[in-house]
This record gives sequence, C-alpha cells and structure tokens, in this order.
Amino acid sequence: MSDVRVIIQRDSEREERVVTTGTTAAELFAGERTIVAARVAGELKDLAYEVKDGETVESVEISSEDGLNILRHSTAHVMAQAVQELFPEAKLGIGPPVKDGFYYDFDVEKPFTPEDLKAVEKKMQEIQKRGQRFSRRVVTDEAAREELASEPYKLELIGLKGSASSDDGADVEVGAGELTIYDNIDAKSGDLCWKDLCRGPHLPTTRNIPAFKLMRNASAYWRGSEKNKQLQRIYGTAWPSRDELKAHLEFLAEAEKRDHRKLGSELDLFSIPEQIGSGLAVFHPKGGIIRRVMEDYSRRRHEEAGYEFVYTPHATKGKLFETSGHLDWYADGMYPPMQLDEGVDYYLKPMNCPMHNLIFDARGRSYRELPLRLFEFGTVYRYEKSGVVHGLTRARGFTQDDAHIYCTREQMSEELDKLLTFVLELLRDYGLTDFYLELSTKDPEKFVGSDEAWEEATETLRQVAEKQGLPLVPDPGGAAFYGPKISVQAKDAIGRTWQMSTIQLDFNLPERFELEYTSPDGSKQRPVMIHRALFGSIERFFAVLLEHYAGAFPAWLAPVQAVGIPVGDAHVPYLQEFAAEAKKKGLRVEVDASSDRMQKKIRTQQKLKVPFMIIVGDDDMNAGTVSFRYRDGSQENGIPRDEALAKLVDVVERRVQV
Amino acid sequence: MSDVRVIIQRDSEREERVVTTGTTAAELFAGERTIVAARVAGELKDLAYEVKDGETVESVEISSEDGLNILRHSTAHVMAQAVQELFPEAKLGIGPPVKDGFYYDFDVEKPFTPEDLKAVEKKMQEIQKRGQRFSRRVVTDEAAREELASEPYKLELIGLKGSASSDDGADVEVGAGELTIYDNIDAKSGDLCWKDLCRGPHLPTTRNIPAFKLMRNASAYWRGSEKNKQLQRIYGTAWPSRDELKAHLEFLAEAEKRDHRKLGSELDLFSIPEQIGSGLAVFHPKGGIIRRVMEDYSRRRHEEAGYEFVYTPHATKGKLFETSGHLDWYADGMYPPMQLDEGVDYYLKPMNCPMHNLIFDARGRSYRELPLRLFEFGTVYRYEKSGVVHGLTRARGFTQDDAHIYCTREQMSEELDKLLTFVLELLRDYGLTDFYLELSTKDPEKFVGSDEAWEEATETLRQVAEKQGLPLVPDPGGAAFYGPKISVQAKDAIGRTWQMSTIQLDFNLPERFELEYTSPDGSKQRPVMIHRALFGSIERFFAVLLEHYAGAFPAWLAPVQAVGIPVGDAHVPYLQEFAAEAKKKGLRVEVDASSDRMQKKIRTQQKLKVPFMIIVGDDDMNAGTVSFRYRDGSQENGIPRDEALAKLVDVVERRVQV
Repeated sequence: MSDVRVIIQRDSEREERVVTTGTTAAELFAGERTIVAARVAGELKDLAYEVKDGETVESVEISSEDGLNILRHSTAHVMAQAVQELFPEAKLGIGPPVKDGFYYDFDVEKPFTPEDLKAVEKKMQEIQKRGQRFSRRVVTDEAAREELASEPYKLELIGLKGSASSDDGADVEVGAGELTIYDNIDAKSGDLCWKDLCRGPHLPTTRNIPAFKLMRNASAYWRGSEKNKQLQRIYGTAWPSRDELKAHLEFLAEAEKRDHRKLGSELDLFSIPEQIGSGLAVFHPKGGIIRRVMEDYSRRRHEEAGYEFVYTPHATKGKLFETSGHLDWYADGMYPPMQLDEGVDYYLKPMNCPMHNLIFDARGRSYRELPLRLFEFGTVYRYEKSGVVHGLTRARGFTQDDAHIYCTREQMSEELDKLLTFVLELLRDYGLTDFYLELSTKDPEKFVGSDEAWEEATETLRQVAEKQGLPLVPDPGGAAFYGPKISVQAKDAIGRTWQMSTIQLDFNLPERFELEYTSPDGSKQRPVMIHRALFGSIERFFAVLLEHYAGAFPAWLAPVQAVGIPVGDAHVPYLQEFAAEAKKKGLRVEVDASSDRMQKKIRTQQKLKVPFMIIVGDDDMNAGTVSFRYRDGSQENGIPRDEALAKLVDVVERRVQV
Repeated sequence: MSDVRVIIQRDSEREERVVTTGTTAAELFAGERTIVAARVAGELKDLAYEVKDGETVESVEISSEDGLNILRHSTAHVMAQAVQELFPEAKLGIGPPVKDGFYYDFDVEKPFTPEDLKAVEKKMQEIQKRGQRFSRRVVTDEAAREELASEPYKLELIGLKGSASSDDGADVEVGAGELTIYDNIDAKSGDLCWKDLCRGPHLPTTRNIPAFKLMRNASAYWRGSEKNKQLQRIYGTAWPSRDELKAHLEFLAEAEKRDHRKLGSELDLFSIPEQIGSGLAVFHPKGGIIRRVMEDYSRRRHEEAGYEFVYTPHATKGKLFETSGHLDWYADGMYPPMQLDEGVDYYLKPMNCPMHNLIFDARGRSYRELPLRLFEFGTVYRYEKSGVVHGLTRARGFTQDDAHIYCTREQMSEELDKLLTFVLELLRDYGLTDFYLELSTKDPEKFVGSDEAWEEATETLRQVAEKQGLPLVPDPGGAAFYGPKISVQAKDAIGRTWQMSTIQLDFNLPERFELEYTSPDGSKQRPVMIHRALFGSIERFFAVLLEHYAGAFPAWLAPVQAVGIPVGDAHVPYLQEFAAEAKKKGLRVEVDASSDRMQKKIRTQQKLKVPFMIIVGDDDMNAGTVSFRYRDGSQENGIPRDEALAKLVDVVERRVQV
C-alpha cells in the first residue's frame, strides 16, 4: 500500500494529510456527523469515494445547498423503496430533489390516497431506522437494461444517456458520464433491499436522514410533456434537524394562510375563471380598487419623475417581432399566431418594447428630448406551460408597469443612478423594505454590442448598486445577450424573496430598429435603451402585497378603508352622515346598515380585514364623537368627528399601516 | 283608349285624376322639373313608367333621399359611358350610388391618372349637354348574355340574379325580379350611345344632372373579395344644384382639414404603424395625455354614479363565447383562434360582457347589491375587413368605456332614466351639445325573451327618451335579437352626425349565463342586464373630439395647456418659475427656452393649437404680471401672476373653451 497525499478543505481551512491507498472520504471526515458528502475537483462524491493522490477533498455539510439536495435525493430513494414495498406493481419515474424537498413519480393504477401516503411515510420510518447503506455501482448500458428490465421508464432514460435535459428532471438519473446504479443494502444482513438508476451522490446510510415528511401528491406527465402518460407524484420534505422541519412546516402553514389565491377569493378581490382559462385573471370590484390605487400612485410618481405615458395595442403583425428578434429567440414564450387578411400572421405581444421603439421612431428626435422616458401599463401575453402557471404570480396575461428610457451614452450613468433610487423609494412606499440587489453580467459566449459598451454599462450598474448600500449579489454570465441587468430582490413579511424590479440595458434593439437622434453637432447617433419594470407585473405585485400583508392592506390600499358599525338602528343616520363627509374627502367608507347584530358585523369586518371600524352608540352620538376599533381588536373611544376624519385622511396620505 | 283612374301624391297632398291608357308618370308631373321619378306601390319607377288604373303615384323629388340616389346612379352611368368612350378596352364592374355620391369600377390595364379623370369629367359634361335619354328595356337572361358578351363582369352578375347581396353592390344591377338594361339614347338622332345592365330607375335624361364632380380614384376588389381581381374605382359626387355641390366641396375641404389621421400626425398625438397593422394605433405621449384625461374624468364621474371598476383579460377560451353565443352569431367579427395546450382554442375578446357576467356570477348575489354596475375600460379586438378600417373611427382594436348593469325588473325604469341623463350630461361635458336619439325596436321575426318583457322595456326606453326632450327617431325592427336599444347620435362642429352612446337591454345573456340573485323572499330571480358604452370606443371618441375641435382642444383636454414664450432670454427664469407654480396646481405648462425667435415660437405654438401662450417681456417682469395670447391671436396684457394662475385653473376646472 503506497501513500496518498491529499488536501482536506473545510470552508477556508486547509489540511494536508497523507493516507493509505483506498482511504475513503468517510475516513477523512470520520466522526464529523454533519458532513454527508465530499466535493473533489468540483464534483460531488459519496463519502465512500476512495481519495486519490494529489486530490483536494472538500467537505459537504448537510445544511449546505448541496448537502440539502443530497439529503432530499436520498429521502426520495427511501420513499420510492417504501412505495414499491407497499405497491409492488408501481413503476418508477424520476425522483429529484426540489426546493425545500423532493418528489418521486410512479406509474400506478390509481392515485395515492391520504391513507396510502401515511402508510408510505410509516414504511419510510422503518427503512430509515434499518440504516440501509446507499451503495454506488458503475454499470454498462446493457447490464443496466437487464437489471431494470421491469422498469420501462428507467429503460427509456438509459436510452437518453448524455442527451437528458434538466427541464424534465431526467438528468438526475443519467448524465453525460458513466452510468451508475445505487443499491440500498441492509446494514445487518448485507442484502440488497432496493436499487435505482441514479447519478448520485447519496448519504452514507438512511440513518443520516434526520427529519422528513410527506407533503402531498399530484399527477404529473412523464418527462413534463402532455403527450406522455400521467404519473402519480408524491412530494416530501427533509431537513437536517427536527426543529428545522418543524419551522418549515410552520412557515408553510403561514404561507398557506397568506396564499393570494385563497385570500383573493375570501376577500372577493379576483378570480381565475375556468371558462376564461388558466393564468388569465379577472379583477372583481374590490380587487379593482386596490389595483387602481396601486396604478394611480405609481403613475403619479412616474409623472413627477418625467415619464411620458403611451398606449399600444395587444396584437401586432409578426413582422414587428421579426424586427425585434423575438420571433427568433422568444417564440416559445409567445401565443400562436392568428392569420388575418389572407396570409398575414398577427401575434399577441409578449413585450411592449418594440412598440415603444416605433413611438420613438415616429418622428425625428433631437438630443434635446433625451432622456425620453416612455411608460405604459402594458398588458402582455406569454405562453406558460399549464403546469407552471400559478395564480397571479405566474400568469399567461399580465400588465407590466413598463418603461423604456432612451438616452445618450453620457446620460446613462446619471439616469441609472436616479432610476435605482426611484425604484427602491417606490417599492418602500408600497411597504417592502428588505432588499438585496443582483447584478447579472455578460455571458462571454453570447452577447451583442462592443466589449467596451458592456464594460462601461456593467461598471455603471455596479457603482449605482453599491451606492445604495444594499447587499449586491453577483450573477456572472447571467445577463441576457443584449445587455447587463440589475434586479431588485425583496423579502416579504415571512422572509420569502421575490424578484421585483429589473433594470436592463439593451444594446440590441436600438440597432435592430435603427433608432437615432440628432446630436448637437447635427450628426445622427444611436441612443442607449433601458428597459425597466418596477412591479414587474401589476398582477404579480398585487399577489406579493396580498401575501405580504396577509390581506390586511394599509388603509391607502384597502378597498374599504373604514366601515361604520352602529350599536343600534338609531345610530345609522349619524354614521351615514359621517361616511358622506369622509367620501367627500376621497375616503372609501361604508356603513353596515344590515339587520345583523353588532357583534356579527364586527366579525364580518374582521374577516374582511378592514383597517378601521367606526363604532357609534348613544354616547358617541350625544357627544358628537366616534369610536375606532382596529384590526387587533383594540379600541379608541370618543374621538371628535373632525379629529376622526383627520386621522383617517392622515393615515391614508402617509400610506402607513394602522 | 280606355280611361285610367290614378291618385297623384305629393307629400301629404293627394289628387285624383283620370287619364288615358299609356299616360306616363312624366306626363302626370309635366313641368315639375324637380320631380325625377315616381314611387308606385312602394317601388321606384322611371318617369317613363305608364301608370295603370287604380295606382297611387307618388312624386320623387330630386332632393329627397331616393331622388339623390337616382341622380347619383344616373351620373355613374354617364361616367361609365365617358370612360368607355375614352378607354374602349375598359370592362365594366358595378356603379352604385353611395353616401353623397357614386362610384363605378372598371377593369383597365393601369390605374387612372389625375389627367385621365379630368378627361373623363370633360367627356361627361359633353354627354350631359347632349341630353341623352335613359331608356329601360326588359330582357331575357339569354338576350342579356348575348348583348353583354364583351362585359365579363356583367355576365357574372346575370348568373347571380336573385342571389346577389347588397354587401358587394351587385344588387344594384340584378335583383330578384325581371332583368333590365338601360340604354343611353341620343336625343336628336335616337342612336344608342351606351347601355348597362341595371335595375334602375334613372333620371329621364342626362340634362337632369344639375351639378357633378369626380373626386378621386382607388383600387377595389371585384365584389369586395380579396380573392378577386383588383379593379379601378372612380368616385364622384352629384347634387341638385351648383350651390349644393359647392357647399359639399367646401364641407369636404373643412372635413379634410379636420381629418383626425392628419391632425394626429401634425400634433404628434398618435400613429398607426404599418409594422403593427391596419386598425391598431399607438398613442404618443401627447395623445396619451388627452386619452388619460378623457378616461380619468369619465372614471371619476362613473365612480360618483355608483359604478364599480373591474379588469378582465383580452383573451379567453372559446368556451366562453360559446356560452355567450358570440361564436354562433358574431364569429365573422372575431379574430381567428389561437390553439393552446394542445387543442384548446383561445380567442381575443370582441366584447367584455361575457367576462363581466363571470364576475357577477363569481359568488351569490343578493337583491341588496342591485343595481350592480360593473365598469371597465376594456380593450376589444374585432376583425374588420381591411377595406373598411379607417383611422381611429373604425379600428381593429379599441377600448370600450363599457359597463354592464344588473338590476331587477322593478329597478329597470329608474335605472334607464338616470342612465340616459348621465350619458347626455357627460357627453356635454366633453363639448358635444347637439343630439338626437334613436330607438331600435323589435324585429318580429327574430328575438328572444317574452313579448311582455320587450314591450315593457321598449316602452320604458321610449319614455326616458321622450323625457329628454330631444328628437326621437324610431328604428323599427332595428334592435338586436336580444333586446331593444337607445342610441345617442351627436352632431359635431361641422354638422356631421356620429353615433355615440348606446344603451342596450339584454334578455339573452342572463339566460345563457343563468345569472341569478336572491330576492327578499329568498327565491332565485334572473336580473335584467343593460349594456352601455358612452364613448363607444375611447379611440373613436378621441377621433370625433379631435375632428370636432379641429385639434384646438379646450384647455382641460389639451396635452399642453399653456406655453411660456419669453420676449428675450432674460425672461426665461421668470417664466420657468411661473410654470413651476402652475405645475404644482396640476396644470400642464411648458416654457419654450429654445433659441428660436419669439415670432417663430408663437407660430410654432399656433400650429400646435395650444390654448394659452404666456408672453413675458420686461414690462410684465417688472410688474409681476404676464400676458396671455389666445388662439385667435388676441392678447390680454399685464395680468397679475396669481390672477393668471387662477384663470388657468378656472378654465380647466370649468372645462370650457377659451
């Protein structure tokens, strides 16, 4: 046995060690129970991997992103084993880790019932306790085909080896390299309990799974295509500790309570009628008010900031998207064409920019007009696969608060600076306050425009981003081919991150549309173009705010700002008079004059999350006052009417939560 | 010769006369030169018609609608004769009268030049002076085919006899009855000069054409179909007197000056880019301001009137329009489908109503919520043939100020009454003041709903219309199958009538969508539904106002309300300060600080039709005043700044013209 010299790396700590041939990563990290895999030359390896001379072996902690994926992928294997033990006829699809968990697809005769899921979970606990080893084995295609002869979907994947795409999850099992099978081996008997075609890596044993839970089941097409058979998918979650599992489940319960689809229906804000189609929402009157207030305030701020408002249609000849290039590189995201006038293809617009370019180009432009900022609440239509459509956050039709800024190269830096400040200020006004920025820079393989222009633009974006003093996360190579981008990521009330605003430079469209302005010396120059959307989509921002506030909007956004609740019928006229005064001041105030009892009225308004209840009985009426009841149930009595009105106006004007 | 007893009717005047057999209508009306035809038993006849015993023969005056049509149709014959005399190879299409004139289509090798038109007009004057008779002759199909063997289009029309539709104009020539040819006969020699397949009737002779003019030429597909050959069309006009012709030409010149397409480009308001497609406009920033002000004011008024604002998407599954019935009876007006998700047809919406019905139906409704008034600025897409698309007034995509009112049968009358008052008030606010109403009532052959409901609704509409004290024009049988309708017709500044608002009852959709509300007794009841659009389409109303005001909008609608014009550079800061104060008051004020001379600046703003120019020189600056210059060139000097601001605000608030 000759010596093997390796470097062990834990975080920033390096240790050189000389070990004997055949030493495994597990032996290097012996006793370190939170280390579940190793990374060697950038590749993840099982701890059973035998280290070689000269290699650097990095530890992979279970709580790291890679560690969590391995934990969840291994738990998916345990689940599949449990399913096949309970349902021997079940055929295996694929079982990758996903955000916060994992799934596995099965071809079974009928969907799993909640009882089935309980039984599977119980069986998984047994397997987990048995402490089976996950054991890697390289196989030839032929051997794999023989071993997995009873698993038709696995056979299909073997045929895909090297060509599998991450879109359909198939590359979890077969990649470009060697083909491997993972065996689940009983710790005591050494018997083979189960096996799966898999790239790995995996935890050493099922005992390394600290905490897991099955979540739900759903149907899913094999490899994501509606042309294929529908399989049954079980989702689960797995965590490095019971506490983390518990916290995750609590987070999910909180998120479910805030689900905008649920609140949208409970508060009568919007719906997505089946007769219209998935991803196409209608806004009911109350949702319409919130949306309008959101739009009006945005519009006012944009007007003050020098934006000019335009309107463009939703459909156009395909020619326009040939000019812009979208039909070359974005056709999959577009609705199919409609043929008009015997042979001309028209498309719904997925973007507003080409139309704004036509407005820029409708007449000659002088440098005196720049920066020209064209803004539109432009509704666009994008074809999302039915499986990924989700409420208002991933829709097929949505309205962008879309602006395109045309400026000179010299103006670019100042314009971007003002723009980012403006964007963050405005998001704060709507109640989001916790941000970080992401800077997407050039993919050296794929870009248009000169290196020099990219460098200048990227440097400018970096500077304006850094000036904000917010965390700046680099996204190297993440820019679109046409220019670098800053995106603003916002955290909501329960800590979820949403990508909000994007500021995108574009070196491509001004060329394609041959946009020009006349410079002071009379020469024609090409403007720089900036795409920017602040909400991204109004519908999506609406959903984010709805979830952020859990439906309890601050008064300025609330569809009904205050509801008058009379103690008895005798107090109705007094409240109606108060409401009429409030309306004159632009407030949205109603009076519940129904025959319900007062306590019931209060409960109704609590459910509707109205910011102010205005309760009036004899005392208030005689004193010319009203009493406020807030969402938290606290009350403020005997406020003189004028003072009460002034308070309502003030809370609305300052856009604060009460 | 036996006696023939006839009744002669002129307007309300009846005269019985006994004449000999063979007497013509011309002889009955001998010496009455303004009578150019007769109507017998509802049918128009040439004056050469021989009256029969017992007939009532009505006079047709040249200035009546029928008379003008006959005049113009005869002039079309004269034009066709002239064309064939000058271009013997020209083949005849059709030549009907149209609004204010006529046209005739020809198959010729190349389009007519302006010189050709002059030559044709000269030749027509010759023919007119020759005094040729128009002479009717009944022919068999075979005889007609032989006589017109060299006219391929006429031969095609003979084949269509009885099946021709008014859509393609072919029924001008062949109807359901006997086939006739009109000969043009030389007055002196009696020679046949020209002939045409034609139903008639015609003037007695070409001398009865008092005044005509050729207007322009264009290409047009044979029988209006793009599948057919393109012919060359010449348009002309003809009038009962030279004065009327002159007035018409002056009207046209005025209308041309006001053409919204021309003004839209001159004032930089909107454009219809070729790359997007015919009938699909983009609004530039200045047009965007006008449109937004139009919408904002409308929205405010609607909110005050108890409307609730909703938003719905522009595309939907076809299923929705199957439920509504539009795919049965309106499919031709819709864009073709887009197939999504492997097999589901989606359509652009041509109407908003079905989506509003889904909002009504999104939850149970109580009688307490009625009338429920759902409003949307809803952009719809309708397929108009490319030949009829015209600027913003007949577009393929436009935004309706669309509302649907759901009410009980008992509420209907009061709701309609309030509605019509509201509509007229609002139109007046935008500057239209001259109205009449049209009441479209049941087509007894084609309607849904009970007779009783129609009667009640029609009677209600009539009463609310009469209450307005405006002229009420009946349109019997003109209602859509689903309910009676009032439409508001408005006259613009040069006397043209535009159909504006419509108020339409609908007995059909509530049934089809099974809409219900709970009545006070707990039973489920079907609501009455009212469709109403006030502008009709925002784009069209924009165009109507643009033409009505000839671009000189009142200040509240003007994109720029005032422009500061400094006498010299020294006065710029003073004006900018004034403009900043004005902006704080919500006014749209600019300062022309360019290097142009003052007189040039004034000319520029005159062309842009800005309501106020604010001129400041040393005198004003020293006195703390400004001078107003109005569109008519008049000036008001030395107005103290505060007073000037107050005046601007006042003119805008009162929405008056200055």
